[in-house]
Amino acid sequence: MSYNLLKGKKGIIFGALDENSIAWKVAERAYKEKASFILTNTPAALRMGKIYELSHKTESMVVPADATSIIDLNILFDKALDHFGGKIDFLLHSIAMSINIRKGIPYTSINYEFLRKGWEISAVSYHKIMQTAWSKNAMNKWGSIVALTYVASKRSFSYYGDMSDYKSYLESITRNFGYHWGIKKKVRVNTVSQSPSVTKAAKSIKGFNQFFILSEKISPLGNASAEDCANYIITLFSDFTRKVTMQNLYHDGGFSKTGISETMIS
Amino acid sequence: MSYNLLKGKKGIIFGALDENSIAWKVAERAYKEKASFILTNTPAALRMGKIYELSHKTESMVVPADATSIIDLNILFDKALDHFGGKIDFLLHSIAMSINIRKGIPYTSINYEFLRKGWEISAVSYHKIMQTAWSKNAMNKWGSIVALTYVASKRSFSYYGDMSDYKSYLESITRNFGYHWGIKKKVRVNTVSQSPSVTKAAKSIKGFNQFFILSEKISPLGNASAEDCANYIITLFSDFTRKVTMQNLYHDGGFSKTGISETMIS
Amino acid sequence: MSYNLLKGKKGIIFGALDENSIAWKVAERAYKEKASFILTNTPAALRMGKIYELSHKTESMVVPADATSIIDLNILFDKALDHFGGKIDFLLHSIAMSINIRKGIPYTSINYEFLRKGWEISAVSYHKIMQTAWSKNAMNKWGSIVALTYVASKRSFSYYGDMSDYKSYLESITRNFGYHWGIKKKVRVNTVSQSPSVTKAAKSIKGFNQFFILSEKISPLGNASAEDCANYIITLFSDFTRKVTMQNLYHDGGFSKTGISETMIS
Amino acid sequence: MSYNLLKGKKGIIFGALDENSIAWKVAERAYKEKASFILTNTPAALRMGKIYELSHKTESMVVPADATSIIDLNILFDKALDHFGGKIDFLLHSIAMSINIRKGIPYTSINYEFLRKGWEISAVSYHKIMQTAWSKNAMNKWGSIVALTYVASKRSFSYYGDMSDYKSYLESITRNFGYHWGIKKKVRVNTVSQSPSVTKAAKSIKGFNQFFILSEKISPLGNASAEDCANYIITLFSDFTRKVTMQNLYHDGGFSKTGISETMIS
Repeated sequence: MSYNLLKGKKGIIFGALDENSIAWKVAERAYKEKASFILTNTPAALRMGKIYELSHKTESMVVPADATSIIDLNILFDKALDHFGGKIDFLLHSIAMSINIRKGIPYTSINYEFLRKGWEISAVSYHKIMQTAWSKNAMNKWGSIVALTYVASKRSFSYYGDMSDYKSYLESITRNFGYHWGIKKKVRVNTVSQSPSVTKAAKSIKGFNQFFILSEKISPLGNASAEDCANYIITLFSDFTRKVTMQNLYHDGGFSKTGISETMIS
Repeated sequence: MSYNLLKGKKGIIFGALDENSIAWKVAERAYKEKASFILTNTPAALRMGKIYELSHKTESMVVPADATSIIDLNILFDKALDHFGGKIDFLLHSIAMSINIRKGIPYTSINYEFLRKGWEISAVSYHKIMQTAWSKNAMNKWGSIVALTYVASKRSFSYYGDMSDYKSYLESITRNFGYHWGIKKKVRVNTVSQSPSVTKAAKSIKGFNQFFILSEKISPLGNASAEDCANYIITLFSDFTRKVTMQNLYHDGGFSKTGISETMIS
Repeated sequence: MSYNLLKGKKGIIFGALDENSIAWKVAERAYKEKASFILTNTPAALRMGKIYELSHKTESMVVPADATSIIDLNILFDKALDHFGGKIDFLLHSIAMSINIRKGIPYTSINYEFLRKGWEISAVSYHKIMQTAWSKNAMNKWGSIVALTYVASKRSFSYYGDMSDYKSYLESITRNFGYHWGIKKKVRVNTVSQSPSVTKAAKSIKGFNQFFILSEKISPLGNASAEDCANYIITLFSDFTRKVTMQNLYHDGGFSKTGISETMIS
Repeated sequence: MSYNLLKGKKGIIFGALDENSIAWKVAERAYKEKASFILTNTPAALRMGKIYELSHKTESMVVPADATSIIDLNILFDKALDHFGGKIDFLLHSIAMSINIRKGIPYTSINYEFLRKGWEISAVSYHKIMQTAWSKNAMNKWGSIVALTYVASKRSFSYYGDMSDYKSYLESITRNFGYHWGIKKKVRVNTVSQSPSVTKAAKSIKGFNQFFILSEKISPLGNASAEDCANYIITLFSDFTRKVTMQNLYHDGGFSKTGISETMIS
């Protein structure tokens, strides 16, 4: 079923890899809601993943780009502006990677070169995407920019390591770049703080399974799925949420506002 | 333009008075999005306001009810269940009143009898509405309950007096009743923290005008209007936001996340 | 060991009952740090508890007062000003009671008369104490007012019922009255959000034991004891914290900033 | 006047430059309260500032160290352990620098090489200091680690640029490293979110003066001075605050909890 919520809207979706990716689900749902968009990911991810399958399904163009590279981002935005024959209405940032976590390095003996890379990929890329869009004046008035985050940015989750710090940084960029987008361009910028979901990135976290189950148990509505998340993000791209900006929006079945509950004890 | 976002959904809207009320705008927009609903307010408000005009426009029934009265609420919900021939999908609470503010009594020399009344009207009524709906098992699975609040619940706004404390209480009810609705009924409960808007209630606050203008100046996207707010609330009633619960959602043009900005100084 | 941290300071301590009370521990520690103070509680609590033992130990006067009664509070503050021959430097509010919890009434079928009483005792009393002190100009410049709260004011703890809502209200009063005390009298107002501790009030909460143990497990430094809490409150009464105001200060071994941790899973 | 609050405690203070530095004031006050400590800063800062004057006054050793260099930090901690003949009780991180701000580069056209440097100096250094202390098991049980931050980590302050993002990252490190220190070593980690103060770093921010004055006007108790801040930090190093950890503590005269107030309008 479609509501045509994004009819006429154009965007760029960063980070779809395979059918478990939130970005993948957003693309599918945005397509259903009549949006046009470009899919992008790193050349390596394009090879490993199934993005061309998604591109085929959603009638969308794929443009390879490393979101940490200003050169790549310039090319991407130029292609987008050219492809759509005008400005863009929405951007989705769904990019996160911690080499320290992937290699099982504890938070108390971090490799700082890995840390820098993880920060650049997971957080600074959001600033770079916005700075590129800003410099090209690429966003339509009342456009919407969204990135994905996790509640570990606010409380310590021992399995989440340095990714927690990247997410805090990402949420801070949201407020600070959001201020400028707001006053100058009437564009809104938000993050969605999503339940854990079983993506490729998540599976690389040690102990993820037990963690996922406990999160499900604590959340009064259960963990939100990637499909649920896609639905929610559609509302943030739609014209129904024009005055929501600089926010971190929990989409987590109530996890973030639940302390110790009966379900945890019994 | 309509997206049919609430097609088939049934609800109760508390607090519409005149065309400046947020509840009024929600009713208009919900109607456009194909919802059916009952309008309710106190008998006194029904006499003073223009609710029958709204009821006519939106083809909705009016049921008088004082939301501080469990008796009235029981009758209201019975009528609603009967009228719709089944359970309800959404509830809007847009009820707030401070006698202390209305009478110009400072926060430091509050009248405690007025305080009790203000608390019962502005905050406890939300609990009573939910407790009545709960006892009658009146909400459909994946239903949505929303109340309006203001950022004075989190920071001190000297013009907002004891209403700030009621709003804190209201947001707390949201989390605590939201927990039970979530685990037992898969119903979500949230508050929307809205920009100041020029309603009848607002005008009774001394110095409101200067305050409204400064809020406009600080908010990167400007103050959100009542129409904007209605749009936002529609998303919370729709099926696109099923896993958002127990949250306080800022719909304020970025006000809540802006500190001291260039616009405040220049 | 004493540091003379409160030498020359005078105050009123509300809510000491027996040696498990936080207020009791604060009195003992404040005495050690050379403060003078008055102990107060309701006549019923004075009969049930051991406050005269404490009064003897700490060379302090006992004045019975129901903190929900403006009349009693007026008498109390008059006696205090007279007793000390001048203004007061600190106030401690350690008063909380939920009849609904005590009677095992679920949050979803609250008795509203009990609710009103609980709110008046646990939250409004803080406003009344401050309003009485304000009207009598009873606080010295750079004085300090503190109340005790719990993190259930921010997240849902199913065992904590309507007390959670009272605590939210209490923290809101702290900000709003704190604003006025700050600008007019250079007095600070804060709440301390304390770990669960095994007080008489706590024991009346069903399932408290399991809850206490889980809280201990989650908190990286373990639950803070009543003695720890007393130490912390001494710093807030001292001249070392003059510019801390309108805050909710977590004294909880890190509980409030811990999400899902290894200790919860293993 | 001294209370001997830190008698017997040993620490390292990072970031004292001249008599306007908060770290300078902390050193003076810690000395008065009978602590022993090592002063450290980069070789360049040692040349430009007056640290030897402070070292003389406080009978403390100076060890040059660039807090972004693991090599330097290793040497520093080795010297400290040797100098004190044992473990350390407190660490103060007062290090922050944004090259983008210093050069007047707007947040929307950031230089990413400057960004990386600013992040490493202002935020990662805190992790490096703790990781070095951790690897050498250099902290005594019930030790205390504190860094300075600013409320721009939570709300957008347009004059504060990329420093806001560094501060968000710093506060996140506090929670995440704090978790590990807590469970393994019973050491606490916090940040103090301080009023703007007229330090050398602050003066490099364009428009700082107007900003400082407006902050003074908004804060109910006025801006907290560097001396006030030093007093507050002493309590965090003392044994009175053992169970406070992973927190961001506002020491700001109430600024962070004040919205639009009468003082802003009149």
